[in-house]
Amino acid sequence: MLLTEMNKAQLEEFKAECEKAYEAYKAKGLKLNMARGKPGADQLDITMPMLDVLNSSSDLTSEDGTDVRNYGGLTGIPEAKKLFAEMLGVSPEEIIVGGNASLSLMYDSVARAMTHGVLGSEKPWCKLDKVKFLCPAPGYDRHFSICENFGIEMITIPMLETGPDMDMIEKLVAEDDSVKGIWCVPMYSNPDGITYSDETVRRFANLSPKAKDFRIFWDNAYCVHHLTDTPDTLLNIFDECKKTGKEDMVFEFASTSKISFPGAGVAVMAASKANIAQIEKILGIQYISYDKINQLRHVRYFKNFDGIKAKMEEHRAIIAPKFKLVLDTLEKELAPLGVGEWHNPNGGYFISVNTLNGCAKRVVSLCKEAGVVLTGAGATFPYKNDPNDRNIRIAPTYPPLNELEIAINLFCLCVKLASAEKLLAE
Amino acid sequence: MLLTEMNKAQLEEFKAECEKAYEAYKAKGLKLNMARGKPGADQLDITMPMLDVLNSSSDLTSEDGTDVRNYGGLTGIPEAKKLFAEMLGVSPEEIIVGGNASLSLMYDSVARAMTHGVLGSEKPWCKLDKVKFLCPAPGYDRHFSICENFGIEMITIPMLETGPDMDMIEKLVAEDDSVKGIWCVPMYSNPDGITYSDETVRRFANLSPKAKDFRIFWDNAYCVHHLTDTPDTLLNIFDECKKTGKEDMVFEFASTSKISFPGAGVAVMAASKANIAQIEKILGIQYISYDKINQLRHVRYFKNFDGIKAKMEEHRAIIAPKFKLVLDTLEKELAPLGVGEWHNPNGGYFISVNTLNGCAKRVVSLCKEAGVVLTGAGATFPYKNDPNDRNIRIAPTYPPLNELEIAINLFCLCVKLASAEKLLAE
Repeated sequence: MLLTEMNKAQLEEFKAECEKAYEAYKAKGLKLNMARGKPGADQLDITMPMLDVLNSSSDLTSEDGTDVRNYGGLTGIPEAKKLFAEMLGVSPEEIIVGGNASLSLMYDSVARAMTHGVLGSEKPWCKLDKVKFLCPAPGYDRHFSICENFGIEMITIPMLETGPDMDMIEKLVAEDDSVKGIWCVPMYSNPDGITYSDETVRRFANLSPKAKDFRIFWDNAYCVHHLTDTPDTLLNIFDECKKTGKEDMVFEFASTSKISFPGAGVAVMAASKANIAQIEKILGIQYISYDKINQLRHVRYFKNFDGIKAKMEEHRAIIAPKFKLVLDTLEKELAPLGVGEWHNPNGGYFISVNTLNGCAKRVVSLCKEAGVVLTGAGATFPYKNDPNDRNIRIAPTYPPLNELEIAINLFCLCVKLASAEKLLAE
Repeated sequence: MLLTEMNKAQLEEFKAECEKAYEAYKAKGLKLNMARGKPGADQLDITMPMLDVLNSSSDLTSEDGTDVRNYGGLTGIPEAKKLFAEMLGVSPEEIIVGGNASLSLMYDSVARAMTHGVLGSEKPWCKLDKVKFLCPAPGYDRHFSICENFGIEMITIPMLETGPDMDMIEKLVAEDDSVKGIWCVPMYSNPDGITYSDETVRRFANLSPKAKDFRIFWDNAYCVHHLTDTPDTLLNIFDECKKTGKEDMVFEFASTSKISFPGAGVAVMAASKANIAQIEKILGIQYISYDKINQLRHVRYFKNFDGIKAKMEEHRAIIAPKFKLVLDTLEKELAPLGVGEWHNPNGGYFISVNTLNGCAKRVVSLCKEAGVVLTGAGATFPYKNDPNDRNIRIAPTYPPLNELEIAINLFCLCVKLASAEKLLAE
């Protein structure tokens, strides 16, 4: 029976049962975490052999003769550029291989725009009265934090099944030259797990922004992070932009954080040669080079893009059962009651649950009180403001399966309890 | 006989001999480089065993239980903080352990000041009409490039035997609240190899800047890079500042770039707890963590500060003979002619030569034409403008000893030739 169809007495009884079960959970003294998209220890274990590929007898010379131990090689060693160029479908000349964090490549790209502007800027963005970014939401909280950090005004764009609302985006970028950028996670979006449709990608490649220095921040964090035999496919944004002559409009980012090690992976940025020339001048003031030994370690270990794909199959074997457990539990516990909606993603790191309106904060708070940490309610929206207070991001990868089972059952219970409270208060 | 005491005929003859010798060098088709402070391959070889300390069977848990492979640990793992705290004579709470480049820690510190200000700033520096930095010179070209990059006006401060001219510094910081910072390489300064005297350090700790957000950028790049049995000693700037209650005034930087690997070392920043609290908030938007596996690799390899000191003895054994060769050659070739002055540094990476006024550019150009690359003349001054055109930075570490011998002899020849040309033109 749907919760919304219950009468007051039924709801009271339902709530009382939930409360009793909830007290039992609280008595367990749980300490579980489904807050961040962190790989579990078992996922990190599968990449441990990478630590053996370079040792004291290794030749640490890169393809172009560079001693990777020494200074130099600002934009990365050639073999790393090739590897990531293949992964992202661009040429090695369109690649900058960074340090261990794509987040810092993104932050630094915005920071450089603030202090210097991008290619085509008339002045640094910090000299403008107002800079605005479009923020498809639910989205990635750390993208929004970068905007807040630099005082960039965020405009929420609704996410549809095909990606962000392109009608709204086309209109806003065409009308307002203070709109300088948009954050996109085009494949297995954080948190919805939506992959942008071909039409959406083509419409991005066809954007005609009023601002000559508008940039699409294409955070392709989950480009190889498939979870099924029938993965989503994403059009190559650079291929599409080359057709429209607008390839300067895109900064693409990715990393091996969820391929090798989150704390010691290799990040990468793809951009047009003209953009890279502009970036390189400033980057050369900030860095002499990123960690080239770690770049070489990654290339020698993965060898090529097939090596990366093979590793992702290993990850899938570990995390697909976790996603299945969460989705099965949601289906079993929440679907019959009609108190939640979610996507069934084909990849990525998250399951995005929408509760009844006005319940998300209460659910997160109930979970926390019983020892299960979730991403803060609202975090998936600009200014942490979910207008309907309904979106919760579940990150199933970090806890071991047995802990995850407890956590997701508690979560469902909290959704039920919060929903009953909500309906009774109406 | 001093060149300045020669008559015209003697000078003409001297010059002709130099030209003949120079043509002979040119015929050799040399390709040598004394431009950058790069360790030689033999120096990098001594740290190769570091690549064996972590392997696929290592426990990658840090002292506080963090899995260093995963996300988290923004300011560094505890054991790395301890190691560098000992090296810099501060507490672990005053340490941020970074990525592979202290240059980026410095750049990012200035960038943050531009976009956010530092602790005590009334507004971000980019919102001010003018920001000025004091630049002791000769100094490190990459410091000056950071200023140029952000449009910060540079004021040249002369270097004395005791460090920068403190009278001038005290006056400028007290008078002008647009003076927001100063670049210092306090130990074995780049390029002079001068270590600041105790009085100089104490005067720094006693500065009373008009700008409440003035910062001393204390780049202690060569803090353990001794070359003799009687190394220089440097007062601990934080100890002195704690006496005056001005510890918020200092950002200190160091790295293992010239201890382990330039391309894959670990950089570190020391600052007061109040400064670190301000920095951490913004740093947490840019990074989730730096590369913690590489931090652990360094700690497990060096074990403690004694391990670092022992490694520096190995470096000294390789590079002290290079410094001796250069200094002996300068002494033999230039001293009797009175056409150059230089310091005899007890550590660091450079030998700074002052030619007769107006000769440096010519010397660098002559060397280049004969196949020996030097740091560009003027690079050691703000805006690449050496007012006397006389300072040349020699970096003796990178070439093998046999190549260095050729390069430094050619250099001396070019100084002689340029000096003769100069004196004849007067």
